[in-house]
Amino acid sequence: MTYGVGMRLDGGLVFMSDTRTNAGVDNISTFNKTTNWTVPGERSITLLSAGNLATTQALVSQLEERTKARKERAPSIYEAPTMFQLARLVASTLKAVIAEHAEAGQRADAAFGATLILGGQIAGAPSRLFLIYPEGNFIEASDETPFFQIGETKYGKPILLRGYHRDMSFEAATRLLMVSFDSTIKANLSVGAPLDLLVYDEDSLNAGRRRRFAADDPYLTVIGSAWGEALKAALAQLPEIALDDAAP
Amino acid sequence: MTYGVGMRLDGGLVFMSDTRTNAGVDNISTFNKTTNWTVPGERSITLLSAGNLATTQALVSQLEERTKARKERAPSIYEAPTMFQLARLVASTLKAVIAEHAEAGQRADAAFGATLILGGQIAGAPSRLFLIYPEGNFIEASDETPFFQIGETKYGKPILLRGYHRDMSFEAATRLLMVSFDSTIKANLSVGAPLDLLVYDEDSLNAGRRRRFAADDPYLTVIGSAWGEALKAALAQLPEIALDDAAP
Repeated sequence: MTYGVGMRLDGGLVFMSDTRTNAGVDNISTFNKTTNWTVPGERSITLLSAGNLATTQALVSQLEERTKARKERAPSIYEAPTMFQLARLVASTLKAVIAEHAEAGQRADAAFGATLILGGQIAGAPSRLFLIYPEGNFIEASDETPFFQIGETKYGKPILLRGYHRDMSFEAATRLLMVSFDSTIKANLSVGAPLDLLVYDEDSLNAGRRRRFAADDPYLTVIGSAWGEALKAALAQLPEIALDDAAP
Repeated sequence: MTYGVGMRLDGGLVFMSDTRTNAGVDNISTFNKTTNWTVPGERSITLLSAGNLATTQALVSQLEERTKARKERAPSIYEAPTMFQLARLVASTLKAVIAEHAEAGQRADAAFGATLILGGQIAGAPSRLFLIYPEGNFIEASDETPFFQIGETKYGKPILLRGYHRDMSFEAATRLLMVSFDSTIKANLSVGAPLDLLVYDEDSLNAGRRRRFAADDPYLTVIGSAWGEALKAALAQLPEIALDDAAP
């Protein structure tokens, strides 16, 4: 499993992803699931992936080979003129990668699937954020749905719904994401630190600010314990109901 | 979907369940999913169900017919000498009901399945709490795992993990459960009010205190809004991290 979130803020984009991959609980590894392609001053593209690791690695490799082999006819990730065209490129590549494995005679089910969050900015237009499905289609974040989650989405969703504001600072968004990831890590063994953070400032057109939080990172540790205490205090201040008047 | 929780406390047992059933999002109904059988002073048994409604209704009907037709050879829910024997009875009945539908030529997959929480007390022994699987086997709550969830379990789990204490009062447990249900209702359309609460005081050997919270119940409404505010305040008091020193 994986847990990844991409979030649109007034100030830009924020991405967070865990790094755990597993093939069964007895086969766990750490892989980077955040990829960034940047042409300073021209474009900055970030991709988070969840799903079959072979699929997502093949996807990233194909996208990177296209960028290197300039003779390739397909539009490369550095050449797509808009974020929408770029999302189409990534989505069709994902679909092709999955189809390739499926055609090898194996069952073409979720086992080869992957879901992606793609966000970024190309000079001349505002940043955009997409959720790409294994079927090769995608949706875009809006004011009503300003963030996307992939992988193990449920444990960490309630706090995102409550805590998100589009005008929050990157620091507040990071704090919110840390809490959402903390809840998920505590509930699902297949999601684990290190956590990768990437913050993209709107109109900066650079690779963004990245930070990796190891399992023993002081901030991650503080959030884990302080959030537990804060939750208990928050619960304690809610009103209680008298149960004595319930029907016996 | 459904969301149901059974919880063991020092003071007894607490059960909460929603009442929404659905066959697609365009076919929603309200059904009671909490059943209690009581012989005052001798036993009090509570059952929560999640899964196929036809299966869980057939299960409850079969268990009740057994209790009425005294000539029935199988041990009835009023005659099982221990909670363990009672769990075996309910589990084998569940398995038989599912098998009956499966044998009718339909696919025997999760579509007929149901998961149960069974808790109660029989005079002479402490209360016990079980989680019963559609396969007809079951597990019992322990000090390490003092509560069980069925149905849509993920959204409401983080707060239960944080907020539960075995020595909490029934009132505090009700508050905790309301928050857990509020998070779930906000995230999954197929879980909805009214919510049914049943509180069983250890050694009371009565039908427990029941209460139904309608969608517009003042306490449910207060919890929903106050919890949102409390969460935001709890988030705000967590430390922020400086992002400026992250690698550019």
